[in-house]
Amino acid sequence: MNGWQEDYRSRVEQELERLLPPVGGELYAGVVDAMRYSLLGGGKRIRPLLLMEFCRLCGGDPYGVLPWACALEMIHTYSLIHDDLPCMDDDDMRRGRASCHKVYGEATALLAGDALLTMAFETAANPEYAAVVGAQRALSASWELAKAAGAHGMVGGQQIDLSSEGRGVSLDELRKMDECKTGALIRAAARMGCILGGCTPERLSAATEYAGAIGLAFQIVDDILDVTGTAEALGKPVRSDMERDKATYVSLLGVGEAEREANRLTEKAVAALEVFGGEADGLRELAQQLAGRKS
Amino acid sequence: MNGWQEDYRSRVEQELERLLPPVGGELYAGVVDAMRYSLLGGGKRIRPLLLMEFCRLCGGDPYGVLPWACALEMIHTYSLIHDDLPCMDDDDMRRGRASCHKVYGEATALLAGDALLTMAFETAANPEYAAVVGAQRALSASWELAKAAGAHGMVGGQQIDLSSEGRGVSLDELRKMDECKTGALIRAAARMGCILGGCTPERLSAATEYAGAIGLAFQIVDDILDVTGTAEALGKPVRSDMERDKATYVSLLGVGEAEREANRLTEKAVAALEVFGGEADGLRELAQQLAGRKS
Repeated sequence: MNGWQEDYRSRVEQELERLLPPVGGELYAGVVDAMRYSLLGGGKRIRPLLLMEFCRLCGGDPYGVLPWACALEMIHTYSLIHDDLPCMDDDDMRRGRASCHKVYGEATALLAGDALLTMAFETAANPEYAAVVGAQRALSASWELAKAAGAHGMVGGQQIDLSSEGRGVSLDELRKMDECKTGALIRAAARMGCILGGCTPERLSAATEYAGAIGLAFQIVDDILDVTGTAEALGKPVRSDMERDKATYVSLLGVGEAEREANRLTEKAVAALEVFGGEADGLRELAQQLAGRKS
Repeated sequence: MNGWQEDYRSRVEQELERLLPPVGGELYAGVVDAMRYSLLGGGKRIRPLLLMEFCRLCGGDPYGVLPWACALEMIHTYSLIHDDLPCMDDDDMRRGRASCHKVYGEATALLAGDALLTMAFETAANPEYAAVVGAQRALSASWELAKAAGAHGMVGGQQIDLSSEGRGVSLDELRKMDECKTGALIRAAARMGCILGGCTPERLSAATEYAGAIGLAFQIVDDILDVTGTAEALGKPVRSDMERDKATYVSLLGVGEAEREANRLTEKAVAALEVFGGEADGLRELAQQLAGRKS
């Protein structure tokens, strides 16, 4: 029943390879190598999957919107590269491999992040791809992406994270941080899919609710796995939140209540899909699967 | 005769203030403060002026395209913030004030750069502004902006710069670096103005030639001022290129030949404007003024 995920994922991998600048040759080959290393370094590709499937549910061609699906992954990857830098979380491992700056140095990693962020918008605004869905929808999708990634979204969440380390943080603040830091881009994935597919306001709103709920659940499960998981399964060190004295759902609620909250959110996400009928079974399954994941 | 520059510049300052998130309140106020500090911290606003004036020359309303003019300045400012970071040029001063990371710390400066880069594309893709020029032109302008800022443009130029420090660099390599690092965004400014104004291919090509020539001249004058200027006039330390053992037009050609090259490029730029007739006198004057500047 996961066939659609495999299919989408393999098309995303191919499209990422196609969109990236080729290896070597240019004087700036260093930054291209670093971009390729991080963008092609694995990952669940959840955001592209959401975009493509919501596009299909709204009547669009999921393969026709692959460039936007990949733009999401470029933004996600840039945020991981910058987040791992010494002046941020100073993480040496990511997705089971050395983080970008450990391999290419800080300066090139910084530039690779900048280049991937920029490439996302280059991809999203390419008139050739826009011709498939029309300039109006392409522009709206670009706008959703930028809003989600910027100061009121992902970057804002990072800033809240920075300013909350080592001090007492309430559950409300933690939720606000996660809604920005990881939630905004996941919501944008669903919304962009709907917009590119050509949806009704009712469907856009249902998709936003679904994505908001799985985004938060995803973060809670992340916090739980940081305590209960293994470095081997996760591809990065565990107990890192505790070591940094970071407030998490687990530190505020305990593992048991955090698990119950993740389950409640997953049920909420599944319920939000009602308007899409049986066609949305793949997304129901995805929500369950993310809540139950071990890595 | 500089009245148009003053007028455009003051409108750009107002528009930047309008587009930026307001001070305070939000949990992520720190990054907003840093964005405001750097974006409103002065500068010549050359790129916005080019965009607005080429838009006017192509029959568009220069004030109707202010958001795109400001988007250019957001990208320019982000590149300065990241360029000043310790892992890059490690500069403490910028535009006569402490650089962003000296005031807000490295992590917040990194995020402020990320947020400004993202905000440029949020602004460029905003459907409300696009309604003024049409989605098609808005999307094309966004695409130009992204191509100029990315791995084949500004970021690529930074990478060439990184990899060229401390080794022998030919004049051709130096030119390629500058065409990417500073030239690409200046060309994009002119091209976006033409595209948003609704131009003929002939005018777009003339504008590209003009901007390519003043962009390179601008960089050569920068290199000359680093040797002959004062820190007071420039608002940043002088002789920095020499200290870093960086190849420049001055180190490769000497001051005299570098000056002649800047003048040749300025003449070339002025000549490229012929297709625009007497209407382009403001841009002719701008080219002369940039070549003769002392800061």
